[in-house]
Parts: sequence; C-alpha cells; structure tokens
Amino acid sequence: MTDIETSAGALTRVPGFRAAGVACGLKQSGQPDLALVACDGPASAAGVFTTNAFRAAPVLYDAALLACARPPQVRAVVANAGNANACTGEQGMRDAEHMAKLAEDALGLPADSVLVMSTGVIGHLMPMDKVARGIRAAAHALSPDGGADAARAIMTTDLVPKEAFTRVRLSGGSVSIGGMAKGSGMIHPALARLHATMLCVVVTDARVAAGVLQTALEEAANASFNRITVDGDTSTNDTVLLLAGGQAGGPEIQAGSEDYDSFKAALAQVCVSLAKQIARDGEGATRLVEIVVRGALSAAEAERAAKTVATSPLVKTAIFGGDPNWGRILAAVGRSGAQVDPGRVNLWLGPVQLVAGGMPLTFDVDAARSALRTAEVGIAVDLGLGTGQATVWTCDFSYKYVEINAEYHT
Amino acid sequence: MTDIETSAGALTRVPGFRAAGVACGLKQSGQPDLALVACDGPASAAGVFTTNAFRAAPVLYDAALLACARPPQVRAVVANAGNANACTGEQGMRDAEHMAKLAEDALGLPADSVLVMSTGVIGHLMPMDKVARGIRAAAHALSPDGGADAARAIMTTDLVPKEAFTRVRLSGGSVSIGGMAKGSGMIHPALARLHATMLCVVVTDARVAAGVLQTALEEAANASFNRITVDGDTSTNDTVLLLAGGQAGGPEIQAGSEDYDSFKAALAQVCVSLAKQIARDGEGATRLVEIVVRGALSAAEAERAAKTVATSPLVKTAIFGGDPNWGRILAAVGRSGAQVDPGRVNLWLGPVQLVAGGMPLTFDVDAARSALRTAEVGIAVDLGLGTGQATVWTCDFSYKYVEINAEYHT
Repeated sequence: MTDIETSAGALTRVPGFRAAGVACGLKQSGQPDLALVACDGPASAAGVFTTNAFRAAPVLYDAALLACARPPQVRAVVANAGNANACTGEQGMRDAEHMAKLAEDALGLPADSVLVMSTGVIGHLMPMDKVARGIRAAAHALSPDGGADAARAIMTTDLVPKEAFTRVRLSGGSVSIGGMAKGSGMIHPALARLHATMLCVVVTDARVAAGVLQTALEEAANASFNRITVDGDTSTNDTVLLLAGGQAGGPEIQAGSEDYDSFKAALAQVCVSLAKQIARDGEGATRLVEIVVRGALSAAEAERAAKTVATSPLVKTAIFGGDPNWGRILAAVGRSGAQVDPGRVNLWLGPVQLVAGGMPLTFDVDAARSALRTAEVGIAVDLGLGTGQATVWTCDFSYKYVEINAEYHT
Repeated sequence: MTDIETSAGALTRVPGFRAAGVACGLKQSGQPDLALVACDGPASAAGVFTTNAFRAAPVLYDAALLACARPPQVRAVVANAGNANACTGEQGMRDAEHMAKLAEDALGLPADSVLVMSTGVIGHLMPMDKVARGIRAAAHALSPDGGADAARAIMTTDLVPKEAFTRVRLSGGSVSIGGMAKGSGMIHPALARLHATMLCVVVTDARVAAGVLQTALEEAANASFNRITVDGDTSTNDTVLLLAGGQAGGPEIQAGSEDYDSFKAALAQVCVSLAKQIARDGEGATRLVEIVVRGALSAAEAERAAKTVATSPLVKTAIFGGDPNWGRILAAVGRSGAQVDPGRVNLWLGPVQLVAGGMPLTFDVDAARSALRTAEVGIAVDLGLGTGQATVWTCDFSYKYVEINAEYHT
C-alpha cells in the first residue's frame, strides 16, 4: 500500500510538469476558470472518456487524437470550467480544435500536442475571445508551483479542489504520480477507451509507452472513477487524461512486468483517492458513503447491486437524515437485478450488523445512528451466494442538493 | 376513448362490491389504516406483483394463491397501511395467511377466498392483535358506499386518495370498472405475473374468467403502472389486484373478442388514470411530468430513454426550479443506452421546441419557463431513428422530498 498525499499542488510535485490556473471570465463569479498543464518534453498520453451518446466536442477531439495510428507526443492539457462545449455541433468541434491550437501557439509547441477538456453549461458556444486571452495568460503563468492553481481553475460546483500525489519504487528508482480532478454534479462516470463532467488530469515522470499507459489507465479508472456516483447522471464531458513525461529516467515500464504492477497499483490508488474526493464533495453532500457488496455470484453482479444502493434516493436521504433504514438498502439490492436469495443476506452499517439471513436483528439503534453520523459511512451487504465483490462510493442526498440544482438557471 | 371519473367512491360504484376503511392503530397518526373490499359473490381474480427479490409476505401469499392449478374464487381483499410485512421471514408468512383467515372468518367465507396487501415500514412483525381488531371492525363497516373510506385507509405518504371509475359498453350491455391505488414513495413499479409499494385494487362487474382477466391486467399494467416512477426505487410490496364479480351479467368476455378489446382498453384507461394520480402525488411533488420519447429504434429503447429522463435527479430538480435546462434531458437520453444519433435529436418542453438536429434553437425562454410551471409538464424527445415510442410519467424533485425521506425515522 502506497501512501497517498492529498495536499495542494500534487500535479507540479511531479518532476517535469508545470501548471497554471487563471480567470478569463467564463465563470460569472470571476473565479479562476482556465487551467493549463504542460510537460517540459514530449509525453506519452492515455485517456478514457464518457460513454454518453452526446459526447462533447473536446471529448471527441481528444479521443480522435489519441486514437491516431501514430500516437501523439503530448506536451500539454488545456481545460476550462464554465462552458462544456457540448451540443454545440460543428462550431463546437472547431472551437475545441482552436483551443488546442491557441495553446500550441502560446507555448511554441508543434501541432497535435495539446489535449482539451471542458466543463460547465451545455449548449452554449464557447466565447473564444475570452478563452484565447485565458490561454495566453495561463501560458505566461505556467509555474513549477502552479498545480494548486490549476486544480482550483477546473472547479464548478466543487467546494474544494481534489488533488492526490504518491511516489512508488520501481526497479530503476522511484517515480512520482500526481493528479487533479473536479466534480461535483452530473457524476456517474462510465468511462471507456474511446468514448466522465468529472475531469481529471494525472501526470507522472515514469517512462511508459502510450499503449501500456492506456491499459494501466483503463484498469485504474474501472477501479476508481467508474465506482463513484453522486446523482446517477453520466455527463457528456467526463474525461481522464494521463501524461507520462519520463523525466524519472530508468528503464521503460513493460507490460506484464513487476514494475508495471507496482506502477498500476500506485496509479489506481491516486485515482481512488481522487474519486473518493469527488464523491465526498458531491453536490450538497454532508458525508462520503462506501458501499461494499460481497458474496455475489460475480463481481459484475456485486457492482450492479452496490450501484443500485448508491443511486437510491431513498437510501441517500435516509443517510442524510441519519436513519438506519436498512429496509431501503435491501429493497435497492432486491431491485438491482443481481441474483439474491433473501434468506442468505447479511447487512451492516459501519460495525453494526442489522440483518442476518434476510431477517432483522435486534440492534443497538444508537450505535447504528452513530455509524451514520461519521464523515465516512460504511454499508456492507453480503449476499452469501458466491465470491463476487465490489466497492462503490457515493454521498448522501440533502436539501442543499435540491437547492444547487433547482436554483441553478441556464 | 372512455371517460374516466376520479371522484370519490369509485370502487363501490361497481355493482356487487362493498368496502370499508377503519383505523386499527397501525399508523401512529391514528388515521384509517385497514381497508376491506368484498364481492357479494365469487369473483374471478388476477394479480401482478413486484419483481423485487425481497418480495413481501403478502405478495408471496397472493401470488401463490393465484397460481394454484384451480384458480380461487376470490371474495375479498384485505389491505393495511403502516406495516409492509416485508423482510419478516416465516412469521411474516404466517401473519399474511392469518390476515386472510381473519377476514374469511369475519365475513363467513370459505378458505382461500381472501387476498392480502400491506404497505408501510419494512422489517417489523405485524401487530396481529391490532390487525385482528381492524379486520373485525372493517367487516362490520362494509358498505355499498365504502369505496372512498377504503381508498383513504391504504394511504401512507399520499396527500390525496387515488380513485378512478368508468363504464364501457360491451355486446351484452355496459359494465363498470372501478379502482383505488396508493403511492407515494418507493415508486418505480416493475410488475410481472408472479412476482409494486404502490397498491391497487380494481374491481369490475364484468363476467371474465381468471385467465383472460390475468392477460388483460398484465397488458393494462404494462401500459400504466410500469410506466410511472417517483424515485426509481421498486418496492418489495407493489401489488395490483383485479376482481371480476360478474354481476353485470351478459356473455362471458372471451379472449380475442371485440368485447375483450373494449374491456381491456377501458381497464387500461382506469389503470393509467390511477398511475398518473400516483405520479402527480409522488413524495414532495409539485407537478406531474409526462415524458414522451418517439423515433427510437424500438418501443423498448424508447421506454429506456424515457425512464432514464424520468429518474434523473438533475432533470427533476430543474423542473422543480422551473429551469428549461434541456442539456440535462439530452444528457439523460445519452446515457440511457438507447441508440442515439446526436445530429437527429429534437426536443420540446410543452409546445416550445428547444433542440433541433441535436443543436440548441434560439427559443422564447419565458414560454419555455411557462411550460415548466404548468401542473402537467410535457417533455417530448424525437430520436429521429425509427418508430419506437413510449410515454412515462413522473414528478419533480423538491425540498419536500428530502424532508419526507430524511425526517422519516424507522
């Protein structure tokens, strides 16, 4: 187990990377809304993108670039908050491409070396004059200490920035992995190779070729971002990008090697840390909820049951209310489609077992309520049928969630 | 199109049926909580039940009785609110059976002639002493004017009772169909033959054999109760029962006949009326929302897309807020799994078209906001791919929903 640090500036603790976050007027609040992350040299790149049919222009742009027969040498990522550039048609595609070109020009980089990310309102064309000014300002502001600024600039309804950093020892020495991400609504990532509005940029100084990097990212994303939900709504813009600059030197990480396993495990931990930070800061959330389903017939069935519990409004409001309403949890498991034998089901809230063999136990109600009042609520369900297991993270469902999303006007 | 009346007392406007609703202490509020519906003679019966794996004891009891090789001659239905008799194991099964027996005894009826329904908290044993007193009191109170009392006695978080009545002309004369139902949380019925906590009792004086009645009910339920959602949570107790007493006389309705088509159409309309009443009175609801998806590759894909929109917290909070946030609607369609070509999608809020060919139109924002402030909000999406169509009903998502479900303590 690697230690994960979540202190500010994770991205630029990785040797070879600089970053900046500036305000260019995309957010009405005047807060920073444009981030730039740049590698000092050509980096291998990998990406996973939303499976929503309405993939936004930047998603289509990045996916096409990374799918090129000759993988691009990526040098930078430009990301904006305040406008998703989604449902914007051909003009949107031109704008995404133009954002990349503006960054390439401002940094003196070759064509096809910049990836793009956007988050914000759907269906409005990008105010490209503001974006252009922002990109030039961010290029000037790039700094080896700019990681924290970048992490703040991609926030939308997020209350806090999300950052994670770790170091992992490989055969040729230690490498660093740092990442930033944003939430906090329309969060139910379903990421796949070519196709999360969570946005996430992870950078590393490890030496890894693009193909190996892509495999590592897909496995890490499946164990992290694809295991969180705030509202069940999969965005048009979800994107996770991973850049490997190679500045750590040492031998290139080869698929199937011990180094690969170590790197992938550390990468997954960074991704899990960022994913949990997103769920904890979900719109209106007062607590993080970890749902573990085990004893399912398969891992896929366990995930299906855990996600159904994680998206149940009745379960999430009960957790907000601090009520150990296990009947709502079982009802969600029962409608998930996972194979269930009611007589074999056990259920725990934190350390307190409430159900054994499908039947309610007499339990310490105060202890169960306490288990719901912790910052991290644990729900565990054992279906008693097999060895399938899955962990999913979500948050509770509060008045504030309704306020944020009913008072928000397009 | 038959006229549907939703005035009080629908059930007992059907000749041959009496009903009652009494208070027996299952609800802490002291409100009526036990309903009895009785037929003056033996009735054919049909039922559809929740597909949740944790089917409650009364669901298991009724499903088993209706599945008997020799279909039962049903005489009555006893229903309680305040306790779901779900996750109550063997004792729960004995209690459900005992409820039927108590009603049979109180009414002087043969064994296996009473069906049972329960709704309320999960995981508590039935206080059978209260139930026994309630059944005896209801048996004494049975009245040809008791329909409205019965409809009130099955309410839980419902604000208003749900009733519907119609008459339909068949070859041998007119027959009556009357029904009552309750919501209003854990509403996302997925009903099937042998397996919603919506409860519904429909009675008719038509002459129909059990098998034909079952087919008619399944088709009607698919077009009505299986098309509504409040919170996406399918209950352990959802049940729709249909009793046909035959008091109207005339020839028995035969499968495939013109009379069957007329009867089924009228039955479906009664069920649609009750289903929409449940959605309109969903927990915390301020308005009914009708979502029509057409132009899908199949009816199943249309239903999948419409249900995804109907369960999206982002869409439902936007409707509560009166915000024409069509991006959230498209994002929900895009994640539904239905085949979508973004460039062919059109979208309307009420009469106002907001999206054409996947691109935002310049629209009258005030007109769109007005379309969201009506008591019945209409959302229409045309996928432009085929002839598949589906209509789904839901409600908006308000502060009150959170209050009802967070302040509720088990």
